[in-house]
Amino acid sequence: MPDFTDNLRPSQPDGPTTLARERAESNISPKELSHHLLSADGFLERQSRILSIVQLEPLFSKEKQQNLSRPQRFKLGLARAKLLRRLKDQHKWSHDEYKMAEYLVDDVSPYFFAPGNASEAQRAEWMPLIESWKIVGAYAQTELGHGSNVRGLELEARWDGKTKEFILHSPTLTASKWWNGSLGRIANHAIVVAQLLLPKDGSENKYVSHGPHPFIVQVRDMKTHLPLSGVVVGDIGPKYGYITMDNAYMLFNHFRIPHSAMLSRYSSVNPNTGIYTKPEQPALVYGSLTYVRAQIVHHARLVLARAVTVAVRYTAIRRQFQDRDGDKHGPEMAVLDYPTVQIRILPLLATAFALHYTGQSMRAIYQSTREDVEQGDFRSLAHMHSMSSGLKSLCTMLAADGVETCRRAMGGHGFGGGSGLIQLNNDYLSKPTVEGDNWMITQQVAAYLIKKMTAAVDSLASPASDKTDAIFKEYIRNRGSSPSGLDVLASDRDVVKSFELRATTLTYDVYEQRVLKKKSWNSLLIQLHKLSKAQSQSILVTNFFESLSTNSSLSDSTKSVMWELFRLFAFYTMENEAFEFFRCNAVTKSALDGLPARVQELMSRIRPHAVNLVDSWMIPDYLLDSALGRYDGRIYEDLYNRAHRLNPLNKITFNPNYWEDEIVKGSGESGASILSKL
Amino acid sequence: MPDFTDNLRPSQPDGPTTLARERAESNISPKELSHHLLSADGFLERQSRILSIVQLEPLFSKEKQQNLSRPQRFKLGLARAKLLRRLKDQHKWSHDEYKMAEYLVDDVSPYFFAPGNASEAQRAEWMPLIESWKIVGAYAQTELGHGSNVRGLELEARWDGKTKEFILHSPTLTASKWWNGSLGRIANHAIVVAQLLLPKDGSENKYVSHGPHPFIVQVRDMKTHLPLSGVVVGDIGPKYGYITMDNAYMLFNHFRIPHSAMLSRYSSVNPNTGIYTKPEQPALVYGSLTYVRAQIVHHARLVLARAVTVAVRYTAIRRQFQDRDGDKHGPEMAVLDYPTVQIRILPLLATAFALHYTGQSMRAIYQSTREDVEQGDFRSLAHMHSMSSGLKSLCTMLAADGVETCRRAMGGHGFGGGSGLIQLNNDYLSKPTVEGDNWMITQQVAAYLIKKMTAAVDSLASPASDKTDAIFKEYIRNRGSSPSGLDVLASDRDVVKSFELRATTLTYDVYEQRVLKKKSWNSLLIQLHKLSKAQSQSILVTNFFESLSTNSSLSDSTKSVMWELFRLFAFYTMENEAFEFFRCNAVTKSALDGLPARVQELMSRIRPHAVNLVDSWMIPDYLLDSALGRYDGRIYEDLYNRAHRLNPLNKITFNPNYWEDEIVKGSGESGASILSKL
Repeated sequence: MPDFTDNLRPSQPDGPTTLARERAESNISPKELSHHLLSADGFLERQSRILSIVQLEPLFSKEKQQNLSRPQRFKLGLARAKLLRRLKDQHKWSHDEYKMAEYLVDDVSPYFFAPGNASEAQRAEWMPLIESWKIVGAYAQTELGHGSNVRGLELEARWDGKTKEFILHSPTLTASKWWNGSLGRIANHAIVVAQLLLPKDGSENKYVSHGPHPFIVQVRDMKTHLPLSGVVVGDIGPKYGYITMDNAYMLFNHFRIPHSAMLSRYSSVNPNTGIYTKPEQPALVYGSLTYVRAQIVHHARLVLARAVTVAVRYTAIRRQFQDRDGDKHGPEMAVLDYPTVQIRILPLLATAFALHYTGQSMRAIYQSTREDVEQGDFRSLAHMHSMSSGLKSLCTMLAADGVETCRRAMGGHGFGGGSGLIQLNNDYLSKPTVEGDNWMITQQVAAYLIKKMTAAVDSLASPASDKTDAIFKEYIRNRGSSPSGLDVLASDRDVVKSFELRATTLTYDVYEQRVLKKKSWNSLLIQLHKLSKAQSQSILVTNFFESLSTNSSLSDSTKSVMWELFRLFAFYTMENEAFEFFRCNAVTKSALDGLPARVQELMSRIRPHAVNLVDSWMIPDYLLDSALGRYDGRIYEDLYNRAHRLNPLNKITFNPNYWEDEIVKGSGESGASILSKL
Repeated sequence: MPDFTDNLRPSQPDGPTTLARERAESNISPKELSHHLLSADGFLERQSRILSIVQLEPLFSKEKQQNLSRPQRFKLGLARAKLLRRLKDQHKWSHDEYKMAEYLVDDVSPYFFAPGNASEAQRAEWMPLIESWKIVGAYAQTELGHGSNVRGLELEARWDGKTKEFILHSPTLTASKWWNGSLGRIANHAIVVAQLLLPKDGSENKYVSHGPHPFIVQVRDMKTHLPLSGVVVGDIGPKYGYITMDNAYMLFNHFRIPHSAMLSRYSSVNPNTGIYTKPEQPALVYGSLTYVRAQIVHHARLVLARAVTVAVRYTAIRRQFQDRDGDKHGPEMAVLDYPTVQIRILPLLATAFALHYTGQSMRAIYQSTREDVEQGDFRSLAHMHSMSSGLKSLCTMLAADGVETCRRAMGGHGFGGGSGLIQLNNDYLSKPTVEGDNWMITQQVAAYLIKKMTAAVDSLASPASDKTDAIFKEYIRNRGSSPSGLDVLASDRDVVKSFELRATTLTYDVYEQRVLKKKSWNSLLIQLHKLSKAQSQSILVTNFFESLSTNSSLSDSTKSVMWELFRLFAFYTMENEAFEFFRCNAVTKSALDGLPARVQELMSRIRPHAVNLVDSWMIPDYLLDSALGRYDGRIYEDLYNRAHRLNPLNKITFNPNYWEDEIVKGSGESGASILSKL
C-alpha cells in the first residue's frame, strides 16, 4: 500500500553521499588490496561467480527469516541445504564452490559429515554412499555428561564372541550422545564413539575397556526414517545459534551391530579370538583436529571483517552531536570521528588483517607438516598442534568478542535486526567452545612450551634445533642482565621482539614453577592460560610483521597504511597487557606511558582509509544482510523498508484492551489459543 | 510415549548428591545472608507470595516458548501482559507487587508507559485514563536519525495561530520516530517529542525552533485500533532481544493536534499570541533520567546474580578430567575446582555483591537528593547525576559481559537453550545502550569531576565543601611528594584509598589537559571514559567496604566470607587495570606482582561457600528457567526432559533425501511452501 512515506528521503548528507566522499578521499585502492588479500586460491573470483547464482534463488532470500519459529526455520534450512546440493549437481561445483555457496547462504547445514578412521575396505564400502548422500551420516562422540574428556565417555560397545557382534548400550542418562550435528532429525547413519569392552583374559563375564572407539551404525530406517528399535534419538532443542542444525541426543538399548561396524583403520578386534590390536601411530589422531582448528583460525578473519565492515560503514554515515569546541554550525559529526568510537572499531579492523596473515601462515604450516608426516617425519607435529590450539583459542575469542564490540559501538541500531550481526553472533558464539574449549586447550600450548624450555635449558651448549629453541636459549643466556633495550615506539622489529620476549619470559616463569619448584599443574592453570595468550599474540604480531616485510607487490600508499594497522594492532594489544610487558622487562615504563597517545594518533591516520579498508574485504551485501553495512550506504532507507514493508507483525491488528481476552482484533481468538504451543 | 530411557539415571555422584554436600560443607547460612540482602523493603516476602500465584498460570509456562516465531511470541507476550494486569485487579496488587509478577514472568511487557512533563490540569485529564489502561500510551522521543542528541530531532510541531493547532510533520525519513516501546502495535496514544516551531517575530512565514517539546497525541482509532489518517506507525521488526516489545516507527503527514496537546508543566505557548514561555527549572529534567539510571544500577545485581547462580551450580556438579598430578582413581574433578573456571565465575559472584551495596546506596542517595530538590536545594543534583551516569555505564557493562562470561564458562551446555541465559542475555544487551549510551554518558562524569577539581584548585585554602572536595584538596597538597605508602595487600582501608587515589590522579590529569593545556574535548574522550570507569570502580569498592564496616548484624562466619568477596572484587579489578594503578602511584609494583597469587588464594577460600552464596540470592527456579541452574541439581534429567519430551521439532519426521523436494516425510509438502514466509 503506497503512503506519504514512499517519497521521503533521509536528511542530508545521506549515506550514499557520505560513503562516496569517504571513498574518494582515501588513496587506498580496495581493488588492489582485495586482490592482495583474497585472490590467492581464486577466492574472489569464486565468490562473485557463485554469488550470482545463489542470490537469484527465492529460497535463499534472507529478508524475513528472522521472524520464523524454530521448526519453520529448520524446515527452511533443510530445504536450502537440499537445494544447495542440487545446485552442486546441476553446476558441477567443486567442493570449494559448494562450500562458497554454503558460506554465502549463511545457514549452518544440517548435512554435515566428515568420516574418518575407516579402513580402506570400509572406505570403499561407505564413501560412495556418503558422497552421493544416499545415506546421511553424523559423527556422534560427545555425550550429555562428557565433552572434552573423551576417555570419560560412558556409552558401551561390548563384544559378544558368540554372535560376533558388538552390543551398544547406554547404562546411564549421561551416556546419551549429545550435540551431534545432523543426527537429531536428518541422519540415518552415525559414527558412534563408545568404550570398547572386550572379555578379560578370555572370560565371558569379565570385561575390560580399551577406551573409546568409533563404530559406524545405522540408526534410522531407510524407508520410514524412524529410529530403529533399541535406538532413541532426537534433536536437543533450541540453542543460542545454529538454529538450522539438528544437534542430537541418542541412546542405545542393548543394540547389536556387526563386527564390521568397528572402524578399523587404526585398531581392530579379531572376530575369532576377540583380541585387540592397538593403534600403530596415535600421533596421527592429532591430524584432523589440527586441520579443523587451522580452518577456524583462517575463517575468523572473515567473521571479524564482516562485523567491522558493518560498523565502519554505519559509523561513517551516522552523525551525532556537533563538536563541543566547534562553532556549532555545520552538520553533526560522523560518529566514527569520535576517538571513543574509533578505539572500539579500528583496532578490530587491524585485528582482521592480523588474523588474515596468521590464518594464511597456519594453512601453509599445516600443509608442510602434513607432507612431513606423510614422509614419516613427525617432528613438526607437536609444534603445529600447540600453535593451532593457542591460536584457535585467541582468534575465536578476538572474533567473537569483536562482533559484539562492533554491535555495541553502533548504539541503538546495533541492537536492531537490521545490523546483520544477530545470527552471525549467535552462530559464532559456538566457536569459543567447540573443537576444544578456549580455556582448556591453552594447556596444550603451555605444555609444549615448558617441554621446549626444559630442552633448551638442558642443551644450552648445543646449537639451536629450531627457531623457538634459539629464542629460548638466547633468553636463558641473557636472563638477569640489563633491560632489553627494545624501543617499541621507534622500531617495528623491536615491537615483534618485545612480544617474543614477553612470551619467553612467561614461559620461563612457568618452567620454573612447574619443573624446578614442582608446583601442581592445576595450581598453574591461570598462568598457563596467560602464557598461551602471550605466545599466540606474539605469533599474530610476528606473522603480520613478516608478511608486510616480505611482500613487495603492494603500492607504497597501501603498504604504509598496512604498517599503521600493524602498529595499531600491536600497540593496542600491548596497552591492554601493559603491566605484563612491563613486568617481563619487554617494554619500558616510559614507552608504555606513551602508548595511549600513540594508539590515538595511529587511529587518526587510519580513519580516513577506514571505508576503503573494509571495502577491500569484499563482503557482498547478500552475505552481510545488513541495513547498516550495505555498500551503497542507504542505511535508513533499508531500515525503514525492513520495518514498514517486510515485517509480518505489522500485518496483524491487535486488541490492546486488557479486559478483553481477544488478542487479534476482530478474530475473537483468545490468549488461551496459544496454550497449545506452551 | 514411554521408552527405556524413562528409567535411566545420570552417572554418580549426581547433581542432588553434589549440591547437598556443597551446602553442608559451608558454614554460610543462605537464610541469614538472603535476609541481609533482600529483606529490607519486603522483597523476599513479596517474591515468594507472588511466585506462588504466577507459577500456577499455564499461560506463564516458559517450557516451550523458545520455539515460537516472533509473531507467536508477541501474541504470547500480549496475552501474558493482559493476564498480569487482570491478576493485579483480582489480587489488588500494589505497584511493587505487580512489578514483581512482571519480573518473575520475565517477559518485557508491551504495556510500558511513564508519563511526565504534564501540567497539573493535563495530569488530571489523562492520568485516570492511563492508570486504568483505558488508553494505552507510549513515549515517542528517539528517531531513526537521532537518539542521544535530542536537540537534533527532526519531527516538527509547527504552530498554526489561525486554527490554534500544532501541525506535526515528518520532513524526512530520518524524522521517523524509532524504537518507541509499546507504540508499534499496542498503544493508541503517545507522548511525541517534536521541534517546537513558532512564528518568528509574529511573522506567518518565518518560523524559529524552540527545541524539542513533548505533545500528547492520539495516534490510533479507539474502535478499529487502526492508525489515524496522516499517521504511519508500525513495529520495527525483530531485534536482538525484547521479542515481546513492539518498538515502533512513526511518521506524521501534516497531522493537526490541538493546543492542549502540548505538555505544559515546564513550558507553554500562549494560544492567543503564539508567545513561548521558557522552562523555569531546567535542572528538574535530570530527575527522571537519574531515577531510571539508579533503577538500572540496582537491577544489575539481580541480573548478574542470576547468571552466577546458574554457573556456580552447574560447574559444581559438572565433572571433567581427573587431577593431572593425582592418582587417577576417584571421580573426575568438579569443573568449579579448576582455577581457570574460578577466575571467570567467582569474581563475578563478588561483583554481584559489589553491585548490591552500590545499588542500595544509589537508592538512598536518590531519595535524599529528591528531598533536597523538593526543598529547593539543587546542590546535590549534579553529584547524583554524575554518579548515576558513571555507574549506569560501568554496572550494565559488568552485568552484560558477566552473563556472557558465565555462559561461556559452562562450555557446550552453556550454548544450549537449557542454560536459561539466552533470553536474559538477549534482553539485557539493550542496557549498555538505552538510557544513555555507556560510552557517551561517561563524559558527564568527567565534566563534573573536572569542575570539582577546578574548584578545589581555586579554593585550596578554604575548608572542603564536601567529601570529593576534601579528597581533591588533599591530593593537590600532596602532589609530587613521595609514594602513597598504601599497603593494599595488608589493609582493606588502603585498598579503598588506592582506588580513590587512582581516580583522583586521573581527574587531575584530565583537568590539566583540559583546563590548563586547553586540549580539545573530543581529543580527550578516551581518557574521560577511563576516568569515569576509575571513579565508578572507586565508588563500588568504597560502598562495599563501608557497608561491611558498618553492618553489625551478620554472623562472624558470613561476614568473614563477605570480606573475602570484597577483596576478591577489589583485587581482581585492580589486576585488570594494574598498569594504571602503578602509573598513578596508587599501588607499588611489588604489591601488583603479588595480586595474581592473592586473587587465586581468595578464590580457593571462597570456593567452598560458592553454592551457599548463590543460594542466598534466592533466585527462584521459575525465574531461572534453567536446567543447569536449578536448585535441586537435577541438571541432566532436566536437559533430557527438554530435549526428549518438550521439543516440538521431534514431533516432525523429515525427508532427508536431497533429490526429493519433500521436507516433511509423507506430507508431499515441498520446500517451496516456505517461500510464502520469505
